[in-house]
Amino acid sequence: MARTTGSHSDITGPRVRAAALSLFAQHGFAAVSMRQIAREVGVQAGALYNYTPDKQSLLFDLMQTHMSDLLSSRDKLPETASPLEALETFTRFHIRFHSERPEEVFIAYMELRNLEPENFEAIEKLRRTYEDQLENILRAGVSEGVFKVADPKLATMAVIAMLTGVNTWFREGGRLSLEEVEQIYWDMVRKSVGA
Amino acid sequence: MARTTGSHSDITGPRVRAAALSLFAQHGFAAVSMRQIAREVGVQAGALYNYTPDKQSLLFDLMQTHMSDLLSSRDKLPETASPLEALETFTRFHIRFHSERPEEVFIAYMELRNLEPENFEAIEKLRRTYEDQLENILRAGVSEGVFKVADPKLATMAVIAMLTGVNTWFREGGRLSLEEVEQIYWDMVRKSVGA
Repeated sequence: MARTTGSHSDITGPRVRAAALSLFAQHGFAAVSMRQIAREVGVQAGALYNYTPDKQSLLFDLMQTHMSDLLSSRDKLPETASPLEALETFTRFHIRFHSERPEEVFIAYMELRNLEPENFEAIEKLRRTYEDQLENILRAGVSEGVFKVADPKLATMAVIAMLTGVNTWFREGGRLSLEEVEQIYWDMVRKSVGA
Repeated sequence: MARTTGSHSDITGPRVRAAALSLFAQHGFAAVSMRQIAREVGVQAGALYNYTPDKQSLLFDLMQTHMSDLLSSRDKLPETASPLEALETFTRFHIRFHSERPEEVFIAYMELRNLEPENFEAIEKLRRTYEDQLENILRAGVSEGVFKVADPKLATMAVIAMLTGVNTWFREGGRLSLEEVEQIYWDMVRKSVGA
């Protein structure tokens, strides 16, 4: 049964994060104690501190991992891709990525208020990086004359809110498949930017 | 200083609701105690129960009041209004109403999970009533041939998410006035439904 601390940590770390994610999403960050998280993982409360210094670090880790995954999972497009192709790729990626992570998305919105200022700034920076990618697509389309957008920054926020909203109602096995939803939303996004 | 119970309750009731709203929005429903709400109002914890039977009733009251206000505040249009006029009125109303109530909007989304089943069903019914109003506008526009919408139900969810999203970034005194934001969003909504 002997394990190195390293391998033990490798196994327990993800379980701690999974437990924290699920408990934060269910009860809210402020209502969850380190003791509850330890109980969910099946370790002593004291043992939890081998994996994380405190609850704030756990929250920050969850949100930072979510935003980093978002940025690193974006489909790579050839340099020659048109703004319209780039927008379609962004739209479909955003819906798929977020619909697979309802708890992360819920926490990323709801628990911003509980991040300490330095952590909040780091998450906001990642969020702005992602938003900038969409804004750059829209600006490229405007300068090529294929999009009609009065304000690329507002259009960015509008499109992202529209797409993330899928999470509030989409259920696997419902009236429409995720592919059908993607297609219908892509049609609306395309039209909304005048393409 | 003598007051009837009635007038005392009339004064304290709104203060209890305001305190609960602010504390729930700041810390989350599960993390707030009736004792904290009483302290915020400046009454004894026991006195709070003159105004509300429990914390769940307070949450339900806040969410029900918010949804009822939403439904009763909608601008009335003449019978002769076109689907396009109705959609513009809906769009501008939705942005204005929600931007004035950031805490209510936050709680209405975040604390659904904490409603008891019967209360959840009542709030969902009000929410569906509101969504149906937009869906009916879209369906009317489709049948008159002025809107091109593949799926009115999805378009309803997409438009509402897009508009409510204004709350996540709009700040009074920022780069754009709310009137300018309304105009830009109305332009995007109109185009997104093919009008």
